[in-house]
Amino acid sequence: MLSKNKIKYIRSLELKKNRKEEHAFLAEGNKLVNDLINHFSCQLLVATKEWLQSHPHLQAAEIIEVTHEELSRASLLKTPQEVLAVFEQPHYEFDANVTDQSLCLALDDVQDPGNLGTIIRIADWFGIEHIFCSSGTADVYNPKTIQATMGAIARVKLHYCNLPDFLKSASQKNTPIFGTFLDGENIYTQELPANGIIIMGNEGNGISKQIAEMVTHRILIPNYPQGCETSESLNVAVATAIVCAEFRRRTAWSSSF
Amino acid sequence: MLSKNKIKYIRSLELKKNRKEEHAFLAEGNKLVNDLINHFSCQLLVATKEWLQSHPHLQAAEIIEVTHEELSRASLLKTPQEVLAVFEQPHYEFDANVTDQSLCLALDDVQDPGNLGTIIRIADWFGIEHIFCSSGTADVYNPKTIQATMGAIARVKLHYCNLPDFLKSASQKNTPIFGTFLDGENIYTQELPANGIIIMGNEGNGISKQIAEMVTHRILIPNYPQGCETSESLNVAVATAIVCAEFRRRTAWSSSF
Repeated sequence: MLSKNKIKYIRSLELKKNRKEEHAFLAEGNKLVNDLINHFSCQLLVATKEWLQSHPHLQAAEIIEVTHEELSRASLLKTPQEVLAVFEQPHYEFDANVTDQSLCLALDDVQDPGNLGTIIRIADWFGIEHIFCSSGTADVYNPKTIQATMGAIARVKLHYCNLPDFLKSASQKNTPIFGTFLDGENIYTQELPANGIIIMGNEGNGISKQIAEMVTHRILIPNYPQGCETSESLNVAVATAIVCAEFRRRTAWSSSF
Repeated sequence: MLSKNKIKYIRSLELKKNRKEEHAFLAEGNKLVNDLINHFSCQLLVATKEWLQSHPHLQAAEIIEVTHEELSRASLLKTPQEVLAVFEQPHYEFDANVTDQSLCLALDDVQDPGNLGTIIRIADWFGIEHIFCSSGTADVYNPKTIQATMGAIARVKLHYCNLPDFLKSASQKNTPIFGTFLDGENIYTQELPANGIIIMGNEGNGISKQIAEMVTHRILIPNYPQGCETSESLNVAVATAIVCAEFRRRTAWSSSF
């Protein structure tokens, strides 16, 4: 039985203000909850009888059995699933040397929660563990972002920070900083290292002027055939995917073709 | 002044049934309307006075000047723009030899209108002019798809067809048919031609069994580092982007790195 207060609490997590106050976030659906429950502390698990019976060994501070109808009143999804869970927001420390030792992403005001979630899923696929976000970037704990990560949020760590300051200290250590620009150099003719920072910009405006000044390698995903009339740009998640795939190809497979 | 009937007509184009009956589709916003108006026959253009004044030479069967408030009653967008337009659906013939002469995409029941639009934008970027769609694929004229193409729909042609029959006739001509599978061969160690068909599958189920049997080259986008725990798959638009980028890199830039 799900009380009105619990329903109100769960639904309140749609708003960043409430998520921040409660240090909590919401995840819905069998696959996502299963992926996250071993990585984050679960405050509240709400599920149907059938689901709970088939998942007998779950760790959660509170477990509430509900009917489908009750669950759909708490759900933020168009098509409510058989389970939802409220998790505690983790707190990650990070070693400033991580950008020297591995490949990281930095997001300069990526606005769309779905794009952010897709980027996290891409980072996970390509073994990128840390994403540094400007304070204007969409909130990782937005339910739309969490759903779009498809569970990748269990493995990828986001750090909201003063991005110009972060990049300044990285550039002082000679960390390579890559950014995509429509007047950048063809990515396929540039050397790409196994460490450093790849910056992706805002959906409408790209990388901001202040951040652009800190980029040491301006790159471009060339269209094909070059010089033809085409779309003016690629979606930010799509561009992230192509860039990350090419960095990893160079490290692992560049000898092939 | 926008009549109630016109508002009803415009809004009715949210549904495929109505779009099909009317052979029409809706596009909203300054950039999109500007991109499409020279490529498709415009039945109806609805815009504010300011917009019309700054676009004096437009060809449309009917032009209606409206206030912002009137326009927002006809709009399907959360944030209505200053212009919307109803275009006639084009009818494309295609030469069956196109798959021998160029690189094409085939979509096997891609469901999400936003994914479809993003895939069209990717195709445009990589010079892929023809996309062959199973009849279960989302409708290209869904307003969400049209908006997500960001204008690329002016250059990329979609053909809804019996996909198994289409692929069967392609395979009889020895056209290479590529499909992505989690147990496919690493794309970076395969030869990739400048022509042929790349099949992308449904968001949840991938490529269907019937279609999979016609694939001549099963490929995989390898994750990094290989063998690590990671997301189980990539979003279909993201996978399309990485595959198309790699095909084009081979043709244009493989000598670089």
